[in-house]
Amino acid sequence: MLDQTHDPQLRSWITSANDPATDYPIQNLPFAVFRRAGSREAFRGGVAIGDQILDLAAARKAGAFSRALVGPAASRAASAASKPTLNDFMGAGRAASVALRRALSLGLRSDSESQSLLAPCLVAQNAAAYAVPARIGDYTDFYTSIHHALAVGRLFRPDHPLLPNYKWVPIGYHGRSSSIAISGLEFARPSGQIVAPAASGASTPVLGPSARLDYELEVGVYVGQGNELGSPIPIAHAEDAVFGLCLLNDWSARDIQAWEYQPLGPFLGKNFATTVSPWIVTLEALEPYRVPWTRPTEDPQPLAYLDSADVRSRGAIDLNLEVWLQTQAMRRHGVAPYRLSHSNFRHAYWSIAQLVAHHSVNGCNLQSGDLLGSGTQSDSVPSGAGSMLELSRNGAQPLRLPNGETRSFLQDGDTVIMRGWCERAGAVRIGLGEVSGQVGGSR
Amino acid sequence: MLDQTHDPQLRSWITSANDPATDYPIQNLPFAVFRRAGSREAFRGGVAIGDQILDLAAARKAGAFSRALVGPAASRAASAASKPTLNDFMGAGRAASVALRRALSLGLRSDSESQSLLAPCLVAQNAAAYAVPARIGDYTDFYTSIHHALAVGRLFRPDHPLLPNYKWVPIGYHGRSSSIAISGLEFARPSGQIVAPAASGASTPVLGPSARLDYELEVGVYVGQGNELGSPIPIAHAEDAVFGLCLLNDWSARDIQAWEYQPLGPFLGKNFATTVSPWIVTLEALEPYRVPWTRPTEDPQPLAYLDSADVRSRGAIDLNLEVWLQTQAMRRHGVAPYRLSHSNFRHAYWSIAQLVAHHSVNGCNLQSGDLLGSGTQSDSVPSGAGSMLELSRNGAQPLRLPNGETRSFLQDGDTVIMRGWCERAGAVRIGLGEVSGQVGGSR
Repeated sequence: MLDQTHDPQLRSWITSANDPATDYPIQNLPFAVFRRAGSREAFRGGVAIGDQILDLAAARKAGAFSRALVGPAASRAASAASKPTLNDFMGAGRAASVALRRALSLGLRSDSESQSLLAPCLVAQNAAAYAVPARIGDYTDFYTSIHHALAVGRLFRPDHPLLPNYKWVPIGYHGRSSSIAISGLEFARPSGQIVAPAASGASTPVLGPSARLDYELEVGVYVGQGNELGSPIPIAHAEDAVFGLCLLNDWSARDIQAWEYQPLGPFLGKNFATTVSPWIVTLEALEPYRVPWTRPTEDPQPLAYLDSADVRSRGAIDLNLEVWLQTQAMRRHGVAPYRLSHSNFRHAYWSIAQLVAHHSVNGCNLQSGDLLGSGTQSDSVPSGAGSMLELSRNGAQPLRLPNGETRSFLQDGDTVIMRGWCERAGAVRIGLGEVSGQVGGSR
Repeated sequence: MLDQTHDPQLRSWITSANDPATDYPIQNLPFAVFRRAGSREAFRGGVAIGDQILDLAAARKAGAFSRALVGPAASRAASAASKPTLNDFMGAGRAASVALRRALSLGLRSDSESQSLLAPCLVAQNAAAYAVPARIGDYTDFYTSIHHALAVGRLFRPDHPLLPNYKWVPIGYHGRSSSIAISGLEFARPSGQIVAPAASGASTPVLGPSARLDYELEVGVYVGQGNELGSPIPIAHAEDAVFGLCLLNDWSARDIQAWEYQPLGPFLGKNFATTVSPWIVTLEALEPYRVPWTRPTEDPQPLAYLDSADVRSRGAIDLNLEVWLQTQAMRRHGVAPYRLSHSNFRHAYWSIAQLVAHHSVNGCNLQSGDLLGSGTQSDSVPSGAGSMLELSRNGAQPLRLPNGETRSFLQDGDTVIMRGWCERAGAVRIGLGEVSGQVGGSR
């Protein structure tokens, strides 16, 4: 399945793309929508290459994607990928992104004849502002980390931490689309109904700012070509419905959530903000990092509609994930962000293909640009917890930061940064970049 | 607050609008998007009047909404209301719909001088096909009927039917936007993971068609002018964010839902189909049917952010609601639909303004065209139950239909029709029309 765009020997004429530490070598070629920071330009599609962005709209205008040069499929795909949202490009399916990736790979590699055409179309990433790359019709959040489900379950239901459906059903729920924002958001601490702990003697809720504000480390999955209402996507074709991956922070107000969530699930505890990283890394770029999806033999094996040889042999992705925190005091004193935890997406109990097949098995229609969240990705060890709820054991064991501060939950001014990347000896590093967000004060 | 458009003495030159039984007298003037059935015309905005639709795009082209004739506000509003979706019209706020309603009321009443301009712009309702009238960014479903919450709670948690948060929090969750369809949908019976009853000896789920397919009788509320992320809508301004009401059937697969919903709420048990009625009745048209919102004095009173003199004096709407069933056998033998239940929206435990204020109190942004569902509207008496789950007591007491058939849940070929209308002596009937849908076979 590896095509020439993954060849680890490839080098680009953009020298920063040849740095072994870059997230965006010529083998990656992720998509975003951007404009120059501070400008009022229209947002348009771009491709990351080293520390630069290839402006697809400008390159198209310059003739770099003429049919004569790149063929009709890549030319059409470049047109769709140049727009202010990538929905049309996503909807054109895997073939379109494969064709455009090939054209981009040829145009950006060292021996390219298009260098003079493309060089004027580069914008430095540090001079760019990004937007949410798709009109997200529906956002679904899953719960695929059994380590997270177990850790949270142990805090709130020590007798039966894992519910009986967990190992059978890829648990998910619908989230809020309108409050999904691009990395860099500073948002007000949400207020809501909160019931004071029983020890306080209070028995009725009050309206107030959340005191248990948290992050959740997740992988986001954008839907490419969707399905019609009533037509499930079989597991064998499920990955054809996937465009690519990003990082996602599902900010959560644990106190609001705890009081509201029975019986219909999280609502105001989650829908005040969700942040995503700007760059979408395609499944094609992640190809070298596919690994078997496994499940302990003593666990129930998936029902047939969630099982396939392909899932078993390469359903998971070896994707490193990290959470970093920089408090206001750290920022003031020039102290670098501190790493809170690290995990890996390969530990997910359900694979991406399984999420897609499950989501549509009842006929529910997925649409291009829809976003699926993986749910908090926690590792089996405490240092791999993907939320502060887990790290501080619901506040019972506050974290001690290197500068002497402590945290049970997030404080005003805290910036949370999540990073994700694939790397392995003999392969080229493929990065997802980062998603950051900052907690403002309460209103 | 009554303006001249509510005057019960008003008559229209369209005679069917003067029938006391019509849902669409000149006092109503609801909005939809439509085209001629069987045509490939573009969908555009229209207004119901008697058994006709005034084609807003055609009337605009004919000059009926020129600034000289109707003024700039109504002219702009007519332009926005002519489009294939009503989002721009909704986003223009209450002032826009008030202005357009006034112009329409003048143009359609008996003494109108615009009759010759408007008459060629009428399309018979029975010759029209409708579309979902807005691009619905987010769909939120609430749970505002305490009678429904109690009835369902008694079935599944007889010891504590009502959860402790119910009387404090307007419980809601995010539903699926992509599978919202206009009235008339025939959809495949959904499949999903189902655990056989314990008595069967089975202990593991199987994939299969839902055997407990149900409807839910709801009122839908479209958001007009929304709010920015981080800026809650105070209760005093909450109704300014509401465009109007429709009927909504939140189809539900009880067996899929029962197995999947812990801990994150309903998902595949709900998101295979939601149907809405075509006509959106504005709050202005419902003005004569506003009634006090009350709560038993022994119940907790709402927190300050959910309370206001306006809510107390006129927060509820006296809106009759009915569910009708026509089975395949009834249709074959020419038997008319049978009324399963009747209820009234005035019994809702939470008012529309409270839903809006609660939804945004954490800073969540509502957008024009967003849809809020009221949750199943059940009355306190058994004949007022808004779902078959309640009517058949989860299948324990099958319903006996007049033609001898029985129903515990919906069977293939069943058509469910919901109707809603306001009426009172001395006032003109204001109807919401109906929403219907039919259960197809399983795939």
